[in-house]
Amino acid sequence: MSEQNQQNHLNQACIKTDALVIGAGPVGLFAIFQLGLQGIQSHVIDTLAHAGGQCAELYPDKPIYDIPGIPYCTGSELVNNLLEQIKPMNATFHWGQEVCDLIRIPNGQLKVSTNQNTFITKTIVLATGVGAFKPKILNVDGIDALVGTHVFYHPHDLSSFKDLDVVIYGGDESAVNAAIELSNTAKSVTLMHRRDVLKAPDELLAKFEQLRTSGQVTFKAGQITELLRSNTPGQEIKVTAPDGSANHLKFDALLVYLGISPQLGPIADWGVDLERKQVPVDTAKFQTNVPGIFAVGDINTYLGKRKLIVSGFHEATLAAFACAELIHPNEPIQLQYTTTSTKLHEILGVARHRS
Amino acid sequence: MSEQNQQNHLNQACIKTDALVIGAGPVGLFAIFQLGLQGIQSHVIDTLAHAGGQCAELYPDKPIYDIPGIPYCTGSELVNNLLEQIKPMNATFHWGQEVCDLIRIPNGQLKVSTNQNTFITKTIVLATGVGAFKPKILNVDGIDALVGTHVFYHPHDLSSFKDLDVVIYGGDESAVNAAIELSNTAKSVTLMHRRDVLKAPDELLAKFEQLRTSGQVTFKAGQITELLRSNTPGQEIKVTAPDGSANHLKFDALLVYLGISPQLGPIADWGVDLERKQVPVDTAKFQTNVPGIFAVGDINTYLGKRKLIVSGFHEATLAAFACAELIHPNEPIQLQYTTTSTKLHEILGVARHRS
Repeated sequence: MSEQNQQNHLNQACIKTDALVIGAGPVGLFAIFQLGLQGIQSHVIDTLAHAGGQCAELYPDKPIYDIPGIPYCTGSELVNNLLEQIKPMNATFHWGQEVCDLIRIPNGQLKVSTNQNTFITKTIVLATGVGAFKPKILNVDGIDALVGTHVFYHPHDLSSFKDLDVVIYGGDESAVNAAIELSNTAKSVTLMHRRDVLKAPDELLAKFEQLRTSGQVTFKAGQITELLRSNTPGQEIKVTAPDGSANHLKFDALLVYLGISPQLGPIADWGVDLERKQVPVDTAKFQTNVPGIFAVGDINTYLGKRKLIVSGFHEATLAAFACAELIHPNEPIQLQYTTTSTKLHEILGVARHRS
Repeated sequence: MSEQNQQNHLNQACIKTDALVIGAGPVGLFAIFQLGLQGIQSHVIDTLAHAGGQCAELYPDKPIYDIPGIPYCTGSELVNNLLEQIKPMNATFHWGQEVCDLIRIPNGQLKVSTNQNTFITKTIVLATGVGAFKPKILNVDGIDALVGTHVFYHPHDLSSFKDLDVVIYGGDESAVNAAIELSNTAKSVTLMHRRDVLKAPDELLAKFEQLRTSGQVTFKAGQITELLRSNTPGQEIKVTAPDGSANHLKFDALLVYLGISPQLGPIADWGVDLERKQVPVDTAKFQTNVPGIFAVGDINTYLGKRKLIVSGFHEATLAAFACAELIHPNEPIQLQYTTTSTKLHEILGVARHRS
């Protein structure tokens, strides 16, 4: 690579920004909005492939009654409204990325590396909620090496398992649902759960029972206790039934649905203080012990903290003011109102209000 | 009055409550909601005849863009949504009442007197914004004695001025509007403003000009400099024109539209600390220096305070938790979510969510 090429490559790989928001749940989204009102465009990272965080992952269709001024909405409606609201702010989203590393560079700014990008930023707003949502891992020797080729955790897209012998491991709604969906396209479908009870809506269970009776899906109670790789091309596992008896099961694809749980990730390695997995902040700026790193929403803690979205919205607002002060240290930050401010109307792209 | 009657009278006059919210602007309304989620029914006082505070009084039809999850709404839409949201909380509203006095009574509770009621309450949430909205007063000797009989400040209902000689004093939209409305029903209408320029939408000014040309209304430039009460039954004022010349003007009703401005009221006399007309609070409970009295929204101040509705919503939420702790000192306050809590669903009157 020539020197010029190397330089280009570095420039391309390194994204410079004033503000990096980590976490695109409702509070992260509102941080983008408030930063935008301060004239600051954000880059945004989320481990998921879409906005919404917990709201989207845990209760997309469930009702929320305590967002001020919204008597009722679902999690996904709230997220969609926020996405609509932040459109004028032109944030750049980086989906499916996880922060691996964070260091302070000599010019005082922060360098953040994900599995795909490097960011140089003046400020960071941590809005990671209870953490990145990660599937629970199957703890069987040798499985790790098959992930992505023969073993898949909570796959969203099932189309690639067509014409394969598929084993689905899990007993909840997502597992039962995958079994039903794949019964049309896979060569064979075996649903395996550690015990003979599935937990899913009655409708799904009835459909599954019907497929089972007609032989389109098989159910096995048992746990995967060993990976046997004797057969090629198919893989084989040892399954131990509740009564202790063991048998072998071949598969092309093993779909693992053991649940999704939040993980805090590497924040602890960044020099940010932690108290029982929460990040302590002050209540004037919602800044952590590391200057330039702010924490808002369920990740933070302070005297009186309640893990409520309404509080996260306030925290994101004050953090945005504090970010603006850091980014533009010589410009006084004035409080302007979206009702009356011409400057804010320009940012929001709305016609000037008739007085 | 018999003793029994006296006792009845006292019982009737004195309203006992756990929580008294003073101010029914957006933040006061959300305090009612959060108190309701804690199982606490509120009584609410406002000097206005309706909910909404500043939102309703200053920008009912103007746009707000920064309520989280609501890309756009008007002031009155926000207020209506909040009124809808708090319906299940069964708050009791006391409109058009002003707090005159507040004392702590021997049992430790707070006694609040308005011009109409007396309340005994365990907690008070001050959500008075920048203060009670009061019309600016005409500073002319003798006028005070005529208020309510011959002099009226910003009257909402104009029907009682039928067949009278009406003088309207002011030059803004509300004054011009009153002149136009009364031109149909009053015996005579004179609009008087200190100078020969009126400030109102073009449409209204055109209509006014038309009525002036046809003689249905009269316009006079001048200031009221003296009250002359020589004539009975009519009143008479001395008017000084911009050129210094003076003349006399008779009236049955003088409608004064000199603007409405917020006034803090008697808070300062209650033992509540004030800093430049703001009430200092802590950021964990939003409690003032007086135990049991909380302050939320534009009235309060703390390190980092921004006068934004989004912050008021957060403050009202934490204040409601703190009220609940005071009201039920022996019950641990748990954080419950409106998405999942059966108890909150009962309070909200919503069907139990299907899991």
